[in-house]
Amino acid sequence: MHDFNTLNALLVDYIDSQKFNQGPQNLYEPVRYILKIGGKRIRPILSLMAAQLFEGDPKTVLPGAFAVEMFHNFSLLHDDIMDEAPLRRGKEAVHIKYGLNAGILSGDVMLVLVYQYLLKMKDAADFAFLTAQFNQAAIEVCEGQQLDVDFETRSEVSEKEYLSMIEKKTAALLGVALTVGAAPFTSQRNLELLDDFGRNLGISFQLIDDLLDTFGDTHKVGKQKGGDIIQNKKTILVIRALENASADQKKELRNWYSSEKEHNHKEKIDAVSQLFIETGAKSATEKLADDYQERAIYAMEKIDASEELKGPLLDLARKLLNREH
Amino acid sequence: MHDFNTLNALLVDYIDSQKFNQGPQNLYEPVRYILKIGGKRIRPILSLMAAQLFEGDPKTVLPGAFAVEMFHNFSLLHDDIMDEAPLRRGKEAVHIKYGLNAGILSGDVMLVLVYQYLLKMKDAADFAFLTAQFNQAAIEVCEGQQLDVDFETRSEVSEKEYLSMIEKKTAALLGVALTVGAAPFTSQRNLELLDDFGRNLGISFQLIDDLLDTFGDTHKVGKQKGGDIIQNKKTILVIRALENASADQKKELRNWYSSEKEHNHKEKIDAVSQLFIETGAKSATEKLADDYQERAIYAMEKIDASEELKGPLLDLARKLLNREH
Repeated sequence: MHDFNTLNALLVDYIDSQKFNQGPQNLYEPVRYILKIGGKRIRPILSLMAAQLFEGDPKTVLPGAFAVEMFHNFSLLHDDIMDEAPLRRGKEAVHIKYGLNAGILSGDVMLVLVYQYLLKMKDAADFAFLTAQFNQAAIEVCEGQQLDVDFETRSEVSEKEYLSMIEKKTAALLGVALTVGAAPFTSQRNLELLDDFGRNLGISFQLIDDLLDTFGDTHKVGKQKGGDIIQNKKTILVIRALENASADQKKELRNWYSSEKEHNHKEKIDAVSQLFIETGAKSATEKLADDYQERAIYAMEKIDASEELKGPLLDLARKLLNREH
Repeated sequence: MHDFNTLNALLVDYIDSQKFNQGPQNLYEPVRYILKIGGKRIRPILSLMAAQLFEGDPKTVLPGAFAVEMFHNFSLLHDDIMDEAPLRRGKEAVHIKYGLNAGILSGDVMLVLVYQYLLKMKDAADFAFLTAQFNQAAIEVCEGQQLDVDFETRSEVSEKEYLSMIEKKTAALLGVALTVGAAPFTSQRNLELLDDFGRNLGISFQLIDDLLDTFGDTHKVGKQKGGDIIQNKKTILVIRALENASADQKKELRNWYSSEKEHNHKEKIDAVSQLFIETGAKSATEKLADDYQERAIYAMEKIDASEELKGPLLDLARKLLNREH
C-alpha cells in the first residue's frame, strides 16, 4: 500500500506526462499554469486512497483522479474571476496573468477535459455510473457557488440552508473524488458509504474553516484573522449567533454587520468574536463540526473493508480537519 | 417521416418540459432565458433528421439533440462575454441582463447539463462512444474560438489555418449533432460519413457567411454589410486577397486594414470590396464554398441509406447554404 507521498508522486508524474492537445498555446498555457501552481492535491489523493481501500491499484484510477483535480482547478479558475481575486495560492490568478477571456475559455476547455479524462476510466468502471456521479457533484458545485453568492445579499439565511450550500460547494466534490477512485473495485453500497464519508468530512472541514477564520492561529491558518467578519460573510457563526442572540445582542450584531457604517476593523473583529462566544455560536459550531466528523467516521465504519486499509483515509481525514495538511 | 416543422415542434415541446433542478433561480433563470430566445435550432433538428435517415424514431434522440443545442447556447453565452456583445438574436445578452458572474456560472452549469442530457442516451447508444465524439467536438469548439481570437492580432494567417479554425469553431458541432442523432441506428462507417457531411456543410456555410457579410443583400442577411471589413476581421476574403494581390494591391489592402488609421466606413467597404473582386478573392471563395458543398454531398452519397430518406437532410443543407432558413 502506498502512503500519501508516494501517491502524490504518482499523481504528479501522471499530470506532468499529459500533453493535452497540440492546439493553441494561448488556450492550454493557462490550463498548465493553474495545474502547476498546484495546491495540495487532496482530492485526487483521496481518489487514489479510495482505490487502495479496496485493494485496487491506484494507477488504474489516475485518469479519474486527474479529472477530479481538473474539475477543482476549473472551478477555482472561474470562481477567481467571479470573486475578482487577484491571487491564487500566492500567485497571480489566471484572469490577471492571461486576461478575462483566456480565463473563461481555458476554464471551459478544462471542464471538457474533465469528461475526457473520466472517459479514460471506461474500461475500468461503469462509465455511465461514473458520469452520473460526476455530473451530480458538478451541478452541486455550480449550485453551491450560486447559493454562496445569493446569501451575500440575503438578510436571513437558515442554518439548514447554509449547511446545504457548503455541502454542494465544497463537500460534494470530496464525495465524488472517493467514488471515482473506488468505483472499479467495490460494490454500490460501499460507494454510497464512501460518498457519505467524503461529504460529511467536507462539511466538517468547512465548518472548521469558518471557526479558524475568526478564532484560528493566524500563523497556522496562513491568512488574516477575521477576514470573514470584515467582509460581512454570512458564515455559520453569524447564522448561529443571530439565532441564539438576545434582543440586545442581535441589535449589536446587526449594527456591526450593517454595511452602511464604517467600522474600525480591529474593534469590529474583537466585538463580533466576543459575541460569537457569548451567544454560544462558537461552541455550537465546534459541536456541529464534531458531529459531522463523527458521521464521517460512522460511514467509514460501515464500509466493508479491512480496518488496516481504512487507516490511511481516516488518518488523512484527521489531518485535514486538524489542518496538518 | 416528420418534416422540419414537426421535428421543431417535437423539440420545443421537449425543451419546454425540462424542469432542470429546483435549485437556485439565479443560476437556472439565465439558462432558460438563452434557450428561450432561441434561434432556429438547426443543430438539434439535424440530430433528429439524422435519426430519421436510418429509420430511427427521432424521439429516441431528443436528449442528445437537446445536449447539442445546450452546448451551442453555452458557447454563445460565453462567447458573448468574451466579445463584449450587448445583444444576442436582438435581445439583451445574458451577461448584460444578468451580469458577468451569472453569465460565467450559468454557462458552466449548461456545460455540465450537456453531459447530463447526453447521459440520457446511454440505453439507446454506446455512451462511451457518444461522449468521445462529443468531447472531441467540444474541445474543437474551444480551440476554434481561441484560434479566432489569436488570428485577430496575427499579421499573417494562411488559408489552411483559417479553414482549420472554422472547421473547429463552427463545423465540428454540426458533425457531432448528426452523429449523436444517428448513433443508435447505424454503423460506424455511416456515422463517419455523416460527420464528414456535417463538417463540410459547416465549412461551406461559414465561407458563404464571409461572402455575404461583404457582398450580401443587407435585407436578406439581416445585418450591416461590411461589418467584417470595418472590424478588420481576417476572413477568407482578406487571406485570399493578400495571397493573390499584386504589390500595389497588397499595399492598398494593408493600408485599409491598418488599425492606426481612421477610415471613412463607406469608402473603406467600397474600396476593399472592389479589391476582393479584382484580386479574384471573391470568386475563389465562391469556388471554395462550392467545393465544400460538393464534398458534403459526396459524403452523403456514400452513406448507406435510401435516397428518399436522404432527401430532407440534403434539402435542409441546401436551404442553409442559400440562407432560406
